[in-house]
This record gives sequence, structure tokens and C-alpha cells, in this order.
Amino acid sequence: MKTFLDCYPCFLDQALRAGRMATDDENKIKELLDEVGCMIRDIPLEHTPPETGEIIYRKVRKITGVEDPYRSVKQSSIEEALDLYPELKKIVDKSDDRLLTAIRLAIAGNVIDLGVRRRFVLTDEIGKILDQDFAIFHYDAFREHLENTASVLYIGDNAGESVFDRILIEELGKPVTYAVRDIPVINDVTMEDAIASGIGEAAEIISSGSPAPGAILRFCNEQFLEKFEHSDLIISKGQGNYEALSEVHRPVFFLLKAKCKVIAADLEVQVDDIVLKGIDA
Amino acid sequence: MKTFLDCYPCFLDQALRAGRMATDDENKIKELLDEVGCMIRDIPLEHTPPETGEIIYRKVRKITGVEDPYRSVKQSSIEEALDLYPELKKIVDKSDDRLLTAIRLAIAGNVIDLGVRRRFVLTDEIGKILDQDFAIFHYDAFREHLENTASVLYIGDNAGESVFDRILIEELGKPVTYAVRDIPVINDVTMEDAIASGIGEAAEIISSGSPAPGAILRFCNEQFLEKFEHSDLIISKGQGNYEALSEVHRPVFFLLKAKCKVIAADLEVQVDDIVLKGIDA
Repeated sequence: MKTFLDCYPCFLDQALRAGRMATDDENKIKELLDEVGCMIRDIPLEHTPPETGEIIYRKVRKITGVEDPYRSVKQSSIEEALDLYPELKKIVDKSDDRLLTAIRLAIAGNVIDLGVRRRFVLTDEIGKILDQDFAIFHYDAFREHLENTASVLYIGDNAGESVFDRILIEELGKPVTYAVRDIPVINDVTMEDAIASGIGEAAEIISSGSPAPGAILRFCNEQFLEKFEHSDLIISKGQGNYEALSEVHRPVFFLLKAKCKVIAADLEVQVDDIVLKGIDA
Repeated sequence: MKTFLDCYPCFLDQALRAGRMATDDENKIKELLDEVGCMIRDIPLEHTPPETGEIIYRKVRKITGVEDPYRSVKQSSIEEALDLYPELKKIVDKSDDRLLTAIRLAIAGNVIDLGVRRRFVLTDEIGKILDQDFAIFHYDAFREHLENTASVLYIGDNAGESVFDRILIEELGKPVTYAVRDIPVINDVTMEDAIASGIGEAAEIISSGSPAPGAILRFCNEQFLEKFEHSDLIISKGQGNYEALSEVHRPVFFLLKAKCKVIAADLEVQVDDIVLKGIDA
């Protein structure tokens, strides 16, 4: 997905929030805003937003000296989600369609997104999404791909959400590779976070190689690209991965909740809609 | 009021909205965002926000070639408000405290602020504000100043809101000078708008000399400054004038609805609160 004009103020807002997570020093945050502001002229509309996200969070690290401003927030998100795990399993057990319920839960976990200026109460969100109609619902195509694939590549999004991903992974019935960000960026899931979320008990975890808040292919490593080229089912979680991958020609299924109006418009859905969208599905 | 860190993304957002009012040319709007983004490093936290607003809207004019992007919106706002005028007069006529009701209506008109990203329905807003408690309520001091002053300086804010200002002016019972922006900036009230609002029938209209979306004294002309120095009651409408004048030492009373969290925090009130605040009152 390209960058829309509305993304530019949002870039500055993201820098501000990340700066505040990293430091209380107003002058450092101002310096960060100065640099990100001046960078806007170097960000063409043709770039995908996570390419810019990568530069912003690199600047946050450089200016504040903090490598992972969201570290403790991510740990709390994972702990909160792990506490819910037994209950989530019960919800799946009691449901008529285990796979669909697990997909819904995986989307519910996608609210744990600190790149977006929104508040949420996780348990409220779960209840809502279990009953919500999908705005795009390529479930039949998803099941068909799942049936015919030897393995699944699952591209994670946020820490904490990763526990919800595990619920879905456990319903797929195929070998799963779970790809994470290469380094900490916003509250996105890294190797350490995926392990803490218990993903290792259900899937192989690899780094995508991407330091951006989205699996931008030109950043990705060979191991990831090999899986990406050969898997017959790729699950892409969240907005950042959608922005990075919306125009590829592979059997990618996007699972997300539309949280910003730009992405909602690109998907032709409304903000707060939930989506299970297969490319060419 | 100084600039807060949260103001910087908002500056970019304001530029985007003004750019879109002026043109459909995405490249021109991008150029505007580039320039405003790069300008951030030249805006110290010590500046008042309307000083930056002045630069932004100057850039909008320069890059798009449109002198008054909000012209037709302002005309519609004035027409809508003029249609309400007879009803507003009746509300005052029926009230127990004409002056206070007129103050409330003048604040209700302050929702017509296109510098802020908010939607409103004017008639809903009037009903709400007629019943709303003030978060700051220096009404006794206001009345005392009104009683003892020979004349009133009334600093207008937005076009359309100006019709609501007329309602209050008509209840003051003293000669009133109504000060407007020197040139079009956002949807702020200019000489032309004030005349179209019928203010000329109730007050003398002057330009403050300020091309900024707030009466920044160093921009103001002699005629305005003379009134500002000698009037024993100055009414300042809206956020932009508050930002410009919050630290002066004159008998200024701020009438506004807090629409952004930065200004609400500076006033120690909540967003959506209504305020009648006298300096040193």
C-alpha cells in the first residue's frame, strides 16, 4: 500500500508517542520531531508506510539511545494475554467452528497495536469480535488453501497479539512457521516476545529479517523469502504487514482489524471493521 | 501559551486540511507538507501556536495560489448562523439572565472552528451549552468590569461564530469595538465576514492587524493596541486568541469551548469544557 497524505501527520504523531515512551526529555523529543518533520520531503507517496516507520523508529533509537522503548509494555501485553489463554482455548472448544473462532480471536488480539492512537480493553474487544460480521470474509478460499498446503507461513504483528496467534496456529493442523520482526520496532513481536508468548510450542519461529513494522520484502532475509515463495498459505496479521504486502502476488490472507481510516479506505471497509482477505481470493 | 509537543503533529494536520480546502492537487499538498515538516525545527517550544499558524497559512497561500481557501465555507457558516439569529434572540429574551445566556450562546458559536478536527451540529451544540456547567466561571468579575468600563474591546474568532458574538454585543450595553483578523486565515472572521454577520449594526469593526489565527500583539496595529491598552474590558473569543493572549496583563476575559487537549490542559480543564476566564480574576 502506498503512503497517503494523511499518513504524514500520523508519522509525526508516531514519532512523538515513541519518543515519549523512550524519554521524558522534552528537548530530545523535539529534536526527534525536527528530524522526522524534515524527513517528510524524502518520503514519496509511492513508499509503503512501514518503510517510513522503520526510519522513524531508527531515529527514536538514535536520538534517545533507547533500543526498545516498548519493552516493558510488550511484556505486560504478553502477560495479560497469557492470563487469558486458558479462557481463549475454552472459547474455541465450545464453538461450532473451531477454525473460524480461532481466526476471530487472532483478529481480536490485533487491537494490541501501539502504533495507532487508540485505547482498548482486551476482554471487551474479544466479546465484540466474536459476534462481529466480517467486512471481507474469504473464509472458503482460506480453508481451501489450508487444506492444500503442506505448511503455513504466519507473519506475526504485535507482542501480546502473538498469544492469540498461538490459538489460531493450534487450529491450523499443519506445520507452521511464525515470522517475527528482526529487531524491536514499536510493540511488534520479536523472537524474544514470540518465545515468551509460547509460540515455540506450536510453531517454528524465524526472523523475517525486517526491521520495519511490516514484512517489507526487500528487507526480508533468505530464510523468510524461501518460505514466502513456496508456502501455499501465508497468514499476514495486522495493518503493518498489510501495508507491506498488499500488492504481492502470493497466496496471502490478511487478518486484521481496520484501525486507521487510510487502511480502511484502501481495503474499502470502515474503521473498526474486521477483515479476512485473500489476495486474488 | 507556549507550543506543546503535541502541537507539532497538529500543525502538519492543519496544513493538510487547509491544503485540501485550497486544491485537489496531491503534489501541491505534498509540497506543502514537505515545507511545513521542515519548518518544525524552526518553531521553538516558546512560540505561541498561532505564530506558527500564520506561517502555515502563508505557505498554503503561496503554494496553492489560493488566498482564502475557506471563503465559501465561511459564507455558509455565516448564513447558517444568520438563519438562527432570530431564534437566538428569543432564547435571550426568554432567559432569566440575559447577559449570561448571551455569553453561553457566544461560546456555543465557538464550535464553528475549522482549525480543529472535530465535527459539530450547531443546533445540538447550542442546546448543550445552554445547560452546561462552566469549568471556569468568572462571571462576577466579568460583570464588575462591564459595569465600570467605558467601552469594550471584543476580539472575534471565527466567521459564523461572529453572528453569535453579535448576540452578546447587543447585551453588553456599552460601546463595543469588534476586532477581526487582518487577512483570511483558516475560517477566522475578517472585516468582510464581520460585516456580513451584521456586526456593523451593533459595534465598530476594526482590523486587529494580525494575519495570524490569534491576536498576537506584535502583529497588531496601533488602532487595536490603543484599544487594547485602554479598555477596561476585553473579551477574547476562542482558542487562537487564548493562545496569543493568555499571558498578557490586561483585563481580558476568555470565552471559549476547549476543543483540543493541549489548550484544555493549559487551562486545567477537560476537552469540551466551557470557560469564562478572566486574567487575574
